[in-house]
Amino acid sequence: MSKDKVNIGLIGFGTIGAGVVEIFNKNQKLISDKTGKNVVLKKVADLDITTDRGVKISEKILTEDVNEILDDPEIDIVIELIGGYEPAKTFILRALKTKKHIVSTNKALISKEWNELISTAKENGVRLNFEASVGGGIPVIQTINEQLSSNKFSSIYGVLNGTANYILSEISENGTDFKSVLKEAQKKGYAELDPTFDIEGNDTAHKIIILSKIAFGKYVSSDDFLIEGISNIDPMDIEFANSDLGCSVKLLGIAKDLNGRLELRVHPTFVPKNHILCSANGVFNGIYLEGDFIGPIFLYGQGAGRMATASAVVGDCVDIILNPSKPINYGPETSQVNELVEANEIFSKYYVRLMIKPKDGVIKEIFKILNKYNIDIDTSIQNSCSEDLVPVFLITNMVKEIDVNNALLDIKGLDSVKEEPVLFRILN
Amino acid sequence: MSKDKVNIGLIGFGTIGAGVVEIFNKNQKLISDKTGKNVVLKKVADLDITTDRGVKISEKILTEDVNEILDDPEIDIVIELIGGYEPAKTFILRALKTKKHIVSTNKALISKEWNELISTAKENGVRLNFEASVGGGIPVIQTINEQLSSNKFSSIYGVLNGTANYILSEISENGTDFKSVLKEAQKKGYAELDPTFDIEGNDTAHKIIILSKIAFGKYVSSDDFLIEGISNIDPMDIEFANSDLGCSVKLLGIAKDLNGRLELRVHPTFVPKNHILCSANGVFNGIYLEGDFIGPIFLYGQGAGRMATASAVVGDCVDIILNPSKPINYGPETSQVNELVEANEIFSKYYVRLMIKPKDGVIKEIFKILNKYNIDIDTSIQNSCSEDLVPVFLITNMVKEIDVNNALLDIKGLDSVKEEPVLFRILN
Repeated sequence: MSKDKVNIGLIGFGTIGAGVVEIFNKNQKLISDKTGKNVVLKKVADLDITTDRGVKISEKILTEDVNEILDDPEIDIVIELIGGYEPAKTFILRALKTKKHIVSTNKALISKEWNELISTAKENGVRLNFEASVGGGIPVIQTINEQLSSNKFSSIYGVLNGTANYILSEISENGTDFKSVLKEAQKKGYAELDPTFDIEGNDTAHKIIILSKIAFGKYVSSDDFLIEGISNIDPMDIEFANSDLGCSVKLLGIAKDLNGRLELRVHPTFVPKNHILCSANGVFNGIYLEGDFIGPIFLYGQGAGRMATASAVVGDCVDIILNPSKPINYGPETSQVNELVEANEIFSKYYVRLMIKPKDGVIKEIFKILNKYNIDIDTSIQNSCSEDLVPVFLITNMVKEIDVNNALLDIKGLDSVKEEPVLFRILN
Repeated sequence: MSKDKVNIGLIGFGTIGAGVVEIFNKNQKLISDKTGKNVVLKKVADLDITTDRGVKISEKILTEDVNEILDDPEIDIVIELIGGYEPAKTFILRALKTKKHIVSTNKALISKEWNELISTAKENGVRLNFEASVGGGIPVIQTINEQLSSNKFSSIYGVLNGTANYILSEISENGTDFKSVLKEAQKKGYAELDPTFDIEGNDTAHKIIILSKIAFGKYVSSDDFLIEGISNIDPMDIEFANSDLGCSVKLLGIAKDLNGRLELRVHPTFVPKNHILCSANGVFNGIYLEGDFIGPIFLYGQGAGRMATASAVVGDCVDIILNPSKPINYGPETSQVNELVEANEIFSKYYVRLMIKPKDGVIKEIFKILNKYNIDIDTSIQNSCSEDLVPVFLITNMVKEIDVNNALLDIKGLDSVKEEPVLFRILN
């Protein structure tokens, strides 16, 4: 990096890319003043350089050829915004190997290829920043990794996916079913045409992998922990959570240090409304952590969106320009956790809904099974209407997930139990 | 700073100082691993080195002589925790001039002597960090100054004083009067024996001065803006805010960029309960900001307390060790705001309570005066009980503060208006 000037190359001129260009158009002086260097967006590469992105950009800096960035020795920082695994990985590795710093938002790639990417950056003495990969514009990675780094963390709970959170908030407010809300979200641009990663929990999983590595020191692959999405969610359960339990339903990424073992999971969760996580509604994200010294801390903001994400991308560039030789050191050097807690070992309160054909003695049978597996029931509510199928709502005290699963297997075998039992974990 | 070892000297072995020692006792390996250097607390100076602070500390590192820190060329970072103006200022300047980096929590000093302290640090090429001076353990200074630095901020609203917030929360929950709650808070250690700075808004003012400098670029002295505390607060008004207006009362530090002019003020404020600021209850702090790209962002955590504050102090040390040569550059280089908005120019919704002796025509007289000053009233509620003095509650629409003040002057002149009118600004 020269003394006076920093050249940036941007790969991927999509939504976020256009946001980055807009920030440079509007606040370049602010950034240059801040860093004490002339910070220039030298090249922007994309396969499509003709579509209007709604931002002013000089034709001279646009290119269809990514090599004009990767092979340019004058480019100091490469911003990778194309997403996905390939060719993003190849581009990033090429750039790192030619001593270019990287800023990326690519949580899928970073969470999958953590070890190779980080070690390549270290070997080449350059920075690899990815603040926008988790929580969009919310500064959470650097916060955990640096400002709070004297803490041992005990837990992280994150509302990390704006699309899923928007859908859950809408169902909760209007009682609309999942499919209609998703369609509406797609129209409004809050959900992608293929929303699988957002609604099935994969995106949240990528993010909690990154957070958990930084907070606890252990890298875990997404194949190795429980990931449940929200696509099967029924408004009836959200309604019950709201009205009867005083809970909101949130798709959470959860990471906990249980006496040196790491519990990692992603699933829709009943969260008591007085918990600060419930202030993250709609497209907003919120990350709640507990550290041994700092106590609880909560960070809230826009988890996605063109400008918020672009703000974090440019923030990463500023960090690199101010500290080009800061050692790459994500998470504690020695992991504070070792093996993973199995999904079956989860210890929690549960909400269970059964759909039963009312018949004398069926409730008694259900309770007999619950009793057999030591499932301690806090509350049970049975709608006494005379319809064909009626819901039975059960709230457990703290019990083991394996016991609940086994009990539900037996309960499903009962003649009067008609549909697949519905289960949610309740945050405690 | 040597390649392998960093020596830290700590001045002020009080509550926070003991917290810092505890972090080093417990997590020194974590910190050393993180920074790649052996980070050592070499000396701790205090006038009283005999009182037991409840933490393990070697007698060898304790000293009554601050010069053992200030004159030791091996000490790289000085943590100043004695608070107040002198001798803290002298110590900090001496340390800076001998090229020692400074970490301080001293918001009173930093907000008062901003220019001299920052310029001395710059001249000597060393760092001056003070993350814990605002929001205790919440990482807010570095967040605004670096991660979010590509944004132009439009506003900051902060619940910045845990003592005042605790007192307001208690009055709100239990209806107890100010004095009893303060006494209780002092017993619990949530309020100092002399709580003036906390309850009269000075502490909040120091903090909003720092935040506003960093977000907007303009330094303002505490003599130059409106600072109102909570010591005269009446439970009746909090009760009305809660029940009739759906608001919590928060002592806020407010900083806004009004088209290039800076509005800075500290006062108890009615905040609608659905605003995320209201999730900061009890001793917790919360800082809400809006940036042009990031949009709204909210940071929440423990604003005071031994360990949370100590966590931020050690976080500052880690930042310095990782980036000893990072340029000191607080706020945008060129201020985005110029002159200050006068208190009289404030434009807001208001809550006004008058105590009147019921008499035919008095309400009409009051409304005539309000009308004369163009005070647009949204709601007025008069308790129709037959007591000697009855309250009249008025909620205005958006009006100018000078008009409200002038109207209240006239209203106070009415025979039937018996006590000093009570006024609160409502956050909109």
